[in-house]
Amino acid sequence: MANSMTLAELATRISARLEGPGDAVVHGFAPIEDAVEGQVTFIAHGKYNAAARISRASAIIAREAVPGASATFLIAANPYLAYATAVELFHPPYRPGAGISGKADIHSTAVICAGATISAFVSIGEGSTVGAGSILFPGVVVGRNVRIGSDCRIYPNAVIYDDVVVGDRVILHAGSVLGSDGFGFAPSATGYKKIPQVGTVEISDDVEIGANTTVDRAALGVTRVGRGTKLDNLVQVGHNVVIGTDTVIASQTGISGSCKVGNRVMIGGQSGLAGHLEIGDGIMLGAKCGVADSLKASDSKVWSGIPVMPHGTWLRNAALMPKLPELFRRVAHLEKDNRSKGDE
Amino acid sequence: MANSMTLAELATRISARLEGPGDAVVHGFAPIEDAVEGQVTFIAHGKYNAAARISRASAIIAREAVPGASATFLIAANPYLAYATAVELFHPPYRPGAGISGKADIHSTAVICAGATISAFVSIGEGSTVGAGSILFPGVVVGRNVRIGSDCRIYPNAVIYDDVVVGDRVILHAGSVLGSDGFGFAPSATGYKKIPQVGTVEISDDVEIGANTTVDRAALGVTRVGRGTKLDNLVQVGHNVVIGTDTVIASQTGISGSCKVGNRVMIGGQSGLAGHLEIGDGIMLGAKCGVADSLKASDSKVWSGIPVMPHGTWLRNAALMPKLPELFRRVAHLEKDNRSKGDE
Amino acid sequence: MANSMTLAELATRISARLEGPGDAVVHGFAPIEDAVEGQVTFIAHGKYNAAARISRASAIIAREAVPGASATFLIAANPYLAYATAVELFHPPYRPGAGISGKADIHSTAVICAGATISAFVSIGEGSTVGAGSILFPGVVVGRNVRIGSDCRIYPNAVIYDDVVVGDRVILHAGSVLGSDGFGFAPSATGYKKIPQVGTVEISDDVEIGANTTVDRAALGVTRVGRGTKLDNLVQVGHNVVIGTDTVIASQTGISGSCKVGNRVMIGGQSGLAGHLEIGDGIMLGAKCGVADSLKASDSKVWSGIPVMPHGTWLRNAALMPKLPELFRRVAHLEKDNRSKGDE
Repeated sequence: MANSMTLAELATRISARLEGPGDAVVHGFAPIEDAVEGQVTFIAHGKYNAAARISRASAIIAREAVPGASATFLIAANPYLAYATAVELFHPPYRPGAGISGKADIHSTAVICAGATISAFVSIGEGSTVGAGSILFPGVVVGRNVRIGSDCRIYPNAVIYDDVVVGDRVILHAGSVLGSDGFGFAPSATGYKKIPQVGTVEISDDVEIGANTTVDRAALGVTRVGRGTKLDNLVQVGHNVVIGTDTVIASQTGISGSCKVGNRVMIGGQSGLAGHLEIGDGIMLGAKCGVADSLKASDSKVWSGIPVMPHGTWLRNAALMPKLPELFRRVAHLEKDNRSKGDE
Repeated sequence: MANSMTLAELATRISARLEGPGDAVVHGFAPIEDAVEGQVTFIAHGKYNAAARISRASAIIAREAVPGASATFLIAANPYLAYATAVELFHPPYRPGAGISGKADIHSTAVICAGATISAFVSIGEGSTVGAGSILFPGVVVGRNVRIGSDCRIYPNAVIYDDVVVGDRVILHAGSVLGSDGFGFAPSATGYKKIPQVGTVEISDDVEIGANTTVDRAALGVTRVGRGTKLDNLVQVGHNVVIGTDTVIASQTGISGSCKVGNRVMIGGQSGLAGHLEIGDGIMLGAKCGVADSLKASDSKVWSGIPVMPHGTWLRNAALMPKLPELFRRVAHLEKDNRSKGDE
Repeated sequence: MANSMTLAELATRISARLEGPGDAVVHGFAPIEDAVEGQVTFIAHGKYNAAARISRASAIIAREAVPGASATFLIAANPYLAYATAVELFHPPYRPGAGISGKADIHSTAVICAGATISAFVSIGEGSTVGAGSILFPGVVVGRNVRIGSDCRIYPNAVIYDDVVVGDRVILHAGSVLGSDGFGFAPSATGYKKIPQVGTVEISDDVEIGANTTVDRAALGVTRVGRGTKLDNLVQVGHNVVIGTDTVIASQTGISGSCKVGNRVMIGGQSGLAGHLEIGDGIMLGAKCGVADSLKASDSKVWSGIPVMPHGTWLRNAALMPKLPELFRRVAHLEKDNRSKGDE
């Protein structure tokens, strides 16, 4: 159930400045065009000012008040961040009661810390530990010698293979897989021989991993995902990849084996990185990028295309591509002109 | 076990006109080159006429009889549709017995309607309902306050998060995930702060969702998939996306947050849509499209490329691309010619 | 726990020639820069010779000894293969004890051969068989009339639909799905009608299938993956696809329905094949390929691009693409020149 509070209380709790009356009681959030009395909304851009003026929301979180709007404003320097904090106040994430379901299967040597929740049909292998306050939803499978930190949320049917280490406050969405074998085979006279993948995976604190995303264990050593990094759904992370801190990788992107992706990198959806590349700190890759070489922010901060080029070049190219047939005609015309001049 | 019937009976049941004897008993389907006596096949194109003449099938569903073929013909205006109906007669989908497995875990407040099947290791949360005749195969996890309509088939290990609504006759394939958190984070001085995703997902009647496909819940409001729409395997649907009715989206396509995809749209495999776009009714996107702007059918019904352009333009481009090195040489040659003329 | 042995014993067991003392005991593997005394490493390329000279590893598997290195060398014609064999000696794959968990759900008609392991929360349907020595990890769901060969490893939460056949020594990673319905619908006046997918899937011996990869059952007939073929994570294989032997398909690739992919084919990540294509034996496709037509090795062994072209052409194109804006300017300049000459 959502909480409710006065606007004055809300303003205090999200460190916003109240502009307008603070006594109305609000109980939840809605998009600006749907919000009604008793609800809060937010605007991050001036383009929503017109919508703000006709909104029926009781309050609007914004960088500055919109003249002509009847709502109370909650003024914040970073409205999106204030909004995130406020939504959390109204809708704190659901916590099932702590304890171990009688329908779980926990190895006798596994350690489940106080306050953890182990749901039905969860399997936890020999020597593994689950930290305080962590929630394992139904169907989660944890292998042997796995360490899961505290206050994690591991959604249904996620799978963690043997020896993987998961930090604190990590969120793993449904169906995500940590520690599957990297893709390595040695050609031989009788077909491919599997290279045993005997390394592991380490997921740092505050990482979130999307539904059905896969992170392969290292061949030797460790595949790492750094603190605060967020992976969207259906992302592939190959063996021995190292991803830095506060990096954001959108859906269906693939990072091939042994890549080093820096800190605060942003990668658009459906992008692909070839193996053994380094992507420098702070680089932004557009959607559907194909990256075949290492990239430095000093060459370009933003890259796009297959293969990637600086984003500005790519934009010019993209505009010209539909004119390519015309260019061929123009060149043929010039050649004809030159020939006819040669005949003169 | 497959059923069997006479050709005359089959013709009646699929509303086809019998051309040839109707007394042979048939018991199943096979591709035209493999079919033997007692089996039925179908042809949708004249290019299979030669195969029809030498086929050993007892009957062929077709738009018109093929002269010289020995099989009985079952003439239908839409042979593919008649074939679909006929296959279903022979191979009705398997239905496990109704009832709740003693190895399921059902919250005491959940409502399981008569005739539903709840298999082993299925988990159903507080306040959720499962409609009459719906089948939940083993390992399916249903969160809290979920509504599942009647006559659904939910294949093993599919996951439905809290509050999601699923209509009637919906098929969810194995490992699909409905209602995982949308990908939204507010940058802050200490790293990304998660935007709580407090909306939900609504799946309309007659939708089919492929294996390991993911549909994220809305940040606020609802992510919707409209009546009769079909999503293939490994598709990603972002938060707050709205997809219309009778739309077909092929494998590994990604629809970014807040897109509105119209009715009767067709999207080829591995396509990607940037966020907040509108794709008009009836539009067709080729495979591997990259869509960065909203598209209207009045501009072009069919689009291809990265970024997309009208399909005809793209076809011409695709043919010219391998000639690009030659074009550069031709232009260099023209420049040399001009220079040498300038020297004259 | 890893094993340990002398270098002389290791050399014998991997059929390598010892160059240097063979009495040191080694107990595991590490990358060349991390390895310490008691560990083995390997080099496959001369570019690691400098690293070999300063490595603290007790032994190095290589094609030839590196002068100046202090480690013992284990000389092998195929160092990568020798390494694979050696890693397996030190780290044999974990085998849980044989037997059927009391928390599994096995139909009374299913046959579990001696030496198989059936873990908790595994479900096995009517008439299915699991061969000797096969391991089903927790949460695996096996439908009806499935045949699983011997010595398979089926990782947590993998799903095998009814009637699928799996050979010997097959590895299925977590969340993989075999036998989901192919994507086939007949348009009708009232929306799409599902084409029942009544074929099946056959996975041959020694196949490995990655995490969350999906292989659809045939509409009629069989979807096949040939002996020794390896599919990476998040790959999609459509209905009625036939893949040959010893073929390797990297992550997030999609193979559309009815494609025939030959033997010893290599396909880079995120590639896509349109339906009904034939890819000849031994062909190599780069990453992110878009294939719209059948390919023969006699035309080109290596292909790249969207749509694909011979790799050499694609490389030249990729180098020229960033110069496209310049080419447009050069052509405009030539046209201006010609016009001004026309004015003379």
